[in-house]
Amino acid sequence: MSPMRTLQVDLGPRSYPIYIGRGLLDRAELFVRHIPGRRVLVVSNETVAPLYLERLQESLGDFQCDAAILPDGEQYKTLEVTGRVFDALLERHHDRETTLIALGGGVIGDIAGFAAACYQRGVPFIQVPTTLLAQVDSSVGGKTGVNHPLGKNMIGAFHQPRCVVADTDTLATLEECQLCAGIAEIIKYGLIQDREFFEWLEAHMEALLGREPEAVAFAVERSCRDKAQVVAVDERESGQRALLNLGHTFGHAIETGSGYGNWLHGEAVAAGMCMAARLSARQGWLAEATVERIEALVRRARLPVVPPAGIASRLREWMAVDKKVRDGRLRLVLLRGIGRAVLTDGFDEAALTAVLEEGAAGA
Amino acid sequence: MSPMRTLQVDLGPRSYPIYIGRGLLDRAELFVRHIPGRRVLVVSNETVAPLYLERLQESLGDFQCDAAILPDGEQYKTLEVTGRVFDALLERHHDRETTLIALGGGVIGDIAGFAAACYQRGVPFIQVPTTLLAQVDSSVGGKTGVNHPLGKNMIGAFHQPRCVVADTDTLATLEECQLCAGIAEIIKYGLIQDREFFEWLEAHMEALLGREPEAVAFAVERSCRDKAQVVAVDERESGQRALLNLGHTFGHAIETGSGYGNWLHGEAVAAGMCMAARLSARQGWLAEATVERIEALVRRARLPVVPPAGIASRLREWMAVDKKVRDGRLRLVLLRGIGRAVLTDGFDEAALTAVLEEGAAGA
Repeated sequence: MSPMRTLQVDLGPRSYPIYIGRGLLDRAELFVRHIPGRRVLVVSNETVAPLYLERLQESLGDFQCDAAILPDGEQYKTLEVTGRVFDALLERHHDRETTLIALGGGVIGDIAGFAAACYQRGVPFIQVPTTLLAQVDSSVGGKTGVNHPLGKNMIGAFHQPRCVVADTDTLATLEECQLCAGIAEIIKYGLIQDREFFEWLEAHMEALLGREPEAVAFAVERSCRDKAQVVAVDERESGQRALLNLGHTFGHAIETGSGYGNWLHGEAVAAGMCMAARLSARQGWLAEATVERIEALVRRARLPVVPPAGIASRLREWMAVDKKVRDGRLRLVLLRGIGRAVLTDGFDEAALTAVLEEGAAGA
Repeated sequence: MSPMRTLQVDLGPRSYPIYIGRGLLDRAELFVRHIPGRRVLVVSNETVAPLYLERLQESLGDFQCDAAILPDGEQYKTLEVTGRVFDALLERHHDRETTLIALGGGVIGDIAGFAAACYQRGVPFIQVPTTLLAQVDSSVGGKTGVNHPLGKNMIGAFHQPRCVVADTDTLATLEECQLCAGIAEIIKYGLIQDREFFEWLEAHMEALLGREPEAVAFAVERSCRDKAQVVAVDERESGQRALLNLGHTFGHAIETGSGYGNWLHGEAVAAGMCMAARLSARQGWLAEATVERIEALVRRARLPVVPPAGIASRLREWMAVDKKVRDGRLRLVLLRGIGRAVLTDGFDEAALTAVLEEGAAGA
C-alpha cells in the first residue's frame, strides 16, 4: 500500500490540505480534525452513496451524521436540487456550526460546496471526490455552483473546502467513460503549463486507463499540485487562473447546447481542447503536427476530438455567455505550444467559425 | 433642500459610501462612479417600479439598463424568485462586468444582493433603498439572502454593495405601516447601543411619524452611522454584530410561524424587542419601569408589543433554527439597560416559556 501524500493549497487563512492515497475513507482522523462542530451532513448521489456512504459514516461515528442523497447527473446540478440540501439541513436542525461533506464526483462537489457557501451565509465543507475528474480538478480550488438552462456554472460562489480527501481506491468502481472524462482534465494540465507531464501522459496512457495504482497516484498528485499552484496565486480568477479553463468555453457550450448530462463534462472539455488547438493552429500559433499530437493523445484516452454534429451554428451563441466575456467581447484560452496557454481576445472570428463547423461535419 | 450627507462603511477594500438626502435618484454621478461596466440590471418590485424605475433609468442613460420586476412581499423572498433575476441576467446577456441595482425595500435588497453574490460567482451591486426600514438597516452591512419555509434568511451570503443611495424623498410614498416598520429598527439602535438616540426618539416620535424631513434625515443618518460602526468592526458577525439582532430571534420566529408576509419584518422585530425586554426583566437584568418605557415608545410608533396569539407553542421551535444557535444551544440578545445589549445563552428556559406565552394570551 502506497503512503498517503499531502499537498497544501496556500491561501492564507483559507489554506487547506489535499490528502491523496488508498483507503483514506476509513481514516477518521483526516476528517475529525477539520470538523468544528458536532453535526455533519453528507451530500452524495444515488450511485455513490450505496458504495461508500456507510463506510464514511462509520468514520464519522462521533458526529450526528445525516445524509442528503441527490439524483446522479449533470442535469441535476440546479438551484432547485440545491434546495433539497437546504431542506435536509433545516429538517435535521443543522446550525451554523455544521459541516457539509461532498461524497461523489464534480456535480456533487459543486452542489454541496455551493450549499455550504450559502447555508446561513456560509458553513465549512469537506470534499471527498470519488471520480478521477473530481480528484484532479473540481474538488480543488473552491469554485462551487450550479447550472442555468442558459449557461453552465452561471450561479455559484468561491468557497474553499477545509480539506480534500482523495481516496484513490474509490476509482476502482468508476465506469470507464468517467475515468476517461477525468483524464481529459489531466491532459489539460500538461497542455496549459506542464509539458513534462504531457510527455509522461504520452508514455503512460495505457497504465492510466488500466488504473495501475502508481500511475493513477502520480497523475492525481501531479494534477493537484499544478492546480494548487495556480489557485494559490489567483484565488478568484482575476488573471492566471483563467488558463485552467482551456477547452472549457467550447466545452461548456457543448454541454449547454446538447443538454446537460448528454455529454460528460470531461468529454466536452476534451473536444474543446482540440478545438482550441485547431483554432490556435489557424491563427498560426501552433504547428499542425502539434495539433495532431494533441488529438492523438486525446483519442488514446477514448475521448472525442470534435463536438457533436448539428449544433455548430448554436455553439457560438452559447459561448457568448461565458464568464470570461468582458464588455461583450469573448476571450478564449488558446495555445502557443504544449505547456504554453494564453488568454486572448485576439482571435479571428472567421477562424473560430471554421473550427466550430469542423464539428458539424462530424469528423 | 437639505444637503446630501455621506457616511463611509469602513471595510478595507470593501469600504463603501452611504449617500443620504433628497432627490438623489436623479443624481446620475452618484451611480456612475460605482458602475464598472456598461450593463446594469435593476431589480425592483411591482409596487416600487411604477413609482421610481423610470427616473432611475433616466439617470442611468449611459448604460444598457434592464430590469427584473418581482412580486412584492416577504413571501416572495425565495430561492425560486431569485432564479428569475438569473433568468433576466442571462436572457439579456449580462456578463461578469454587470452591476445589479436593488430598487425597493428590504426584500428587494436581500434578493438582489444575493443574486449579485451568486451570479457568475459574484458581481457588483448598488442598494437604492426606498423604504425606511431598508434605508436604516437592511441596505447597509452586506447581509443578503432569502427565506426557507423552515427558517428566515437561512440561505444567503455576505456581499457588500458598492454604495447605498438613500433618497429620503422616496419615503413620501410609503404606506404608514411600512413607515412604522422602519421605526422599529430605528428604536433598535437606541436600545442596543445609543441611549441618547433612544431619548431623541422619545422626544421626536410624532415628527418622525409625520415624516418631517429634518427628523427623518436625522434618524436615517444616525441609524446608518450606528450600524456602520458595528459592521466595520465585525463584518461577518463573529461577535458584536450579533447585537444588531435584538428582537430578531423572536421576530424571525414570528414571521416564519405566522407565514411570511403576514407580519411585516419591522412589526415582528418590534414585538420581539419587547419580548427580549420582558425576558431581560424576568432575569432581573432590567427594571419593570424600563420595560414599560420601551413598550410605550413601541406603541407610540403604532407597533405591536406581543406576538400574534395562538402560535406560542410553536415559537420556541422556530427560534431553534436561529443562526446564532451554537452546538444546539440558543443564544439571545437581551438587555441590561437602554443602550446596553448583550448576547447570551444564560437565560432561564422557564422564563422564556413564560414570555412566549404572554403572546398567546393575546394582550
